Amino acid sequence: METMSWQGDRLLLLDQQKLPSEIKQINCFDYLAVADAIRTMKVRGAPAIGAAAAFGMVLGAMEFSGGNVSALKKHLEKVAEVLLNTRPTAVNLFWAVKRMQQSMSVHLDETPAAVIKVLEKEAEEIFREDVELNKKIGYFGSKLIPQNAAILTHCNAGSLATAGYGTAIGVIRTAHSDGKQVTVFADETRPLLQGARLTAWELQEDRIPVTLITDSMAGYLMQLGKIDLVIVGADRIAANGDVANKIGTYSLAVLAKAHAIPFYVAAPYSTIDMALTDGSQIVIEERDHEEVRRIGGIMTAPVGIPVFNPAFDVTTARLISAIITDKGVVSAPYQEELKKITGGGSQ
Amino acid sequence: METMSWQGDRLLLLDQQKLPSEIKQINCFDYLAVADAIRTMKVRGAPAIGAAAAFGMVLGAMEFSGGNVSALKKHLEKVAEVLLNTRPTAVNLFWAVKRMQQSMSVHLDETPAAVIKVLEKEAEEIFREDVELNKKIGYFGSKLIPQNAAILTHCNAGSLATAGYGTAIGVIRTAHSDGKQVTVFADETRPLLQGARLTAWELQEDRIPVTLITDSMAGYLMQLGKIDLVIVGADRIAANGDVANKIGTYSLAVLAKAHAIPFYVAAPYSTIDMALTDGSQIVIEERDHEEVRRIGGIMTAPVGIPVFNPAFDVTTARLISAIITDKGVVSAPYQEELKKITGGGSQ
Repeated sequence: METMSWQGDRLLLLDQQKLPSEIKQINCFDYLAVADAIRTMKVRGAPAIGAAAAFGMVLGAMEFSGGNVSALKKHLEKVAEVLLNTRPTAVNLFWAVKRMQQSMSVHLDETPAAVIKVLEKEAEEIFREDVELNKKIGYFGSKLIPQNAAILTHCNAGSLATAGYGTAIGVIRTAHSDGKQVTVFADETRPLLQGARLTAWELQEDRIPVTLITDSMAGYLMQLGKIDLVIVGADRIAANGDVANKIGTYSLAVLAKAHAIPFYVAAPYSTIDMALTDGSQIVIEERDHEEVRRIGGIMTAPVGIPVFNPAFDVTTARLISAIITDKGVVSAPYQEELKKITGGGSQ
Repeated sequence: METMSWQGDRLLLLDQQKLPSEIKQINCFDYLAVADAIRTMKVRGAPAIGAAAAFGMVLGAMEFSGGNVSALKKHLEKVAEVLLNTRPTAVNLFWAVKRMQQSMSVHLDETPAAVIKVLEKEAEEIFREDVELNKKIGYFGSKLIPQNAAILTHCNAGSLATAGYGTAIGVIRTAHSDGKQVTVFADETRPLLQGARLTAWELQEDRIPVTLITDSMAGYLMQLGKIDLVIVGADRIAANGDVANKIGTYSLAVLAKAHAIPFYVAAPYSTIDMALTDGSQIVIEERDHEEVRRIGGIMTAPVGIPVFNPAFDVTTARLISAIITDKGVVSAPYQEELKKITGGGSQ
């Protein structure tokens, strides 16, 4: 099952809120459906959000009727705004929408139909490229994974979080196919249980040994000496190497440091935001309080109890052993090293 | 609603697996029902388990028919064995059953009926005493709580975990009634959600401000400077001050240390096990894997996915700022200080 596939007139998405108990695909025939799927996390994971938004731009363009390219461009600014307002933290969303707009900018003398074709090609390229980037991340990252490593991961940075293959899970996949006999501990990742529902499922499907734990068990496993390294994905990486990722990542990084366990982040270049000097500038999305009060629709807390529900946290660069990108493995000093691989500009 | 109440012929328990969506009481007419309630965590929390087991011994004695006191004593050894085999980590269970057996030992020349009366009185005394101990813990602990403190707690160490009032929550209750304007962040505490279901409910009922978070958010809150101190209960405290408590406690203690936030443990003397030199000797219960695969009966992970489900972890003494007991506040060196308040023997 693919995370998403472009059908020429619609985007087919695997509904990640239903997995693994139900394998359901949803058809997005217009950009509002894509925006809704991103907002409600039917598609999630920074690179997957980026690719879905790119196809959202294509659908938005296809919905345009009449007028010239300048009118189409204006229409797409509205489409972009809707897509960008779905989720604030993952920079890949902003990166992909901007890239789609830029791809159009050198074709402003063509017909709307021709520009739509350009946009479609660009979205397909973003999608195709993401799988390639993940394989490169896997290639570089696998070198950091020792034989028989017990690897802790959080949330889902797998094929479901990307166009395919995965970032953190991509590294694990490559290490596995390199014959390294890895075993994985997957944090269930409350509140939305991406670890239990998606990571455990992906790894089980791939026959990579996986053991599910609750988020609070990670520290105890480290204390017992059962974890050799931690690897997670990222939603945004600031110029100084601070990393926004799923809530709970920061705690894992502190725990890893306290136990002298390597802590790795895996992400494509599109996740690096050189415009932000440090992680304090990253907007952290706060989501619906019912996500914490309920699980799978069932109330698990008193009605109306006050809740704090940040979807992400920021892990300070000093806690990160290395960031694994498609351009190679980067470590401290991050400021300089990230500049080298990105060319210094905002992506 | 009381955690438990003795009805002369049965033990009435508030079913803590149903709270807060359903307020249901269960009648335990025999000791096997008490053992089952402990095993299935209808009653939970170290001091509450101890008190319930004491009443279980009374019910076991009442089920005895015919024979002399020596036969009753033998019968109660079997009852004790069943009760002791319900849960391995909380020492209060062992302490309470032993105390019940000892209470009988000076009455071996009396009739079985008289001995049963002695046992009933002793169980009621254990129950009554626990509430008093908690109030003393609250008195000593409240002195450690500053004005306007934001307090993080884990699992439920409240009135539901004890005969009444609570240990960690008892300290919070006393601080609140002392007018300290405390606010509480309650970890939901997967897998069984005692924080979401019980602590949030208890505090809401008492009108003490509480905000519910998932377990993985605690570190981020500390990073944001929103937590002034952490306070938790305990299931067993070794002679060196190592503390077994609900899984996730160790992670919180590491995180608190990394953020220079005081980390307190609150427990009555019956939780201290001077027979164990350190925490490595504490048996950690591993519970049913379905607890992690499901929430409220709903599957949230792939069927049959491997799981690790330790119910407790051990927090090393060096991470603990102080242990608040009914005999006063104890801090490092724990070995000596715990010896002073316990008299050095196993409880």
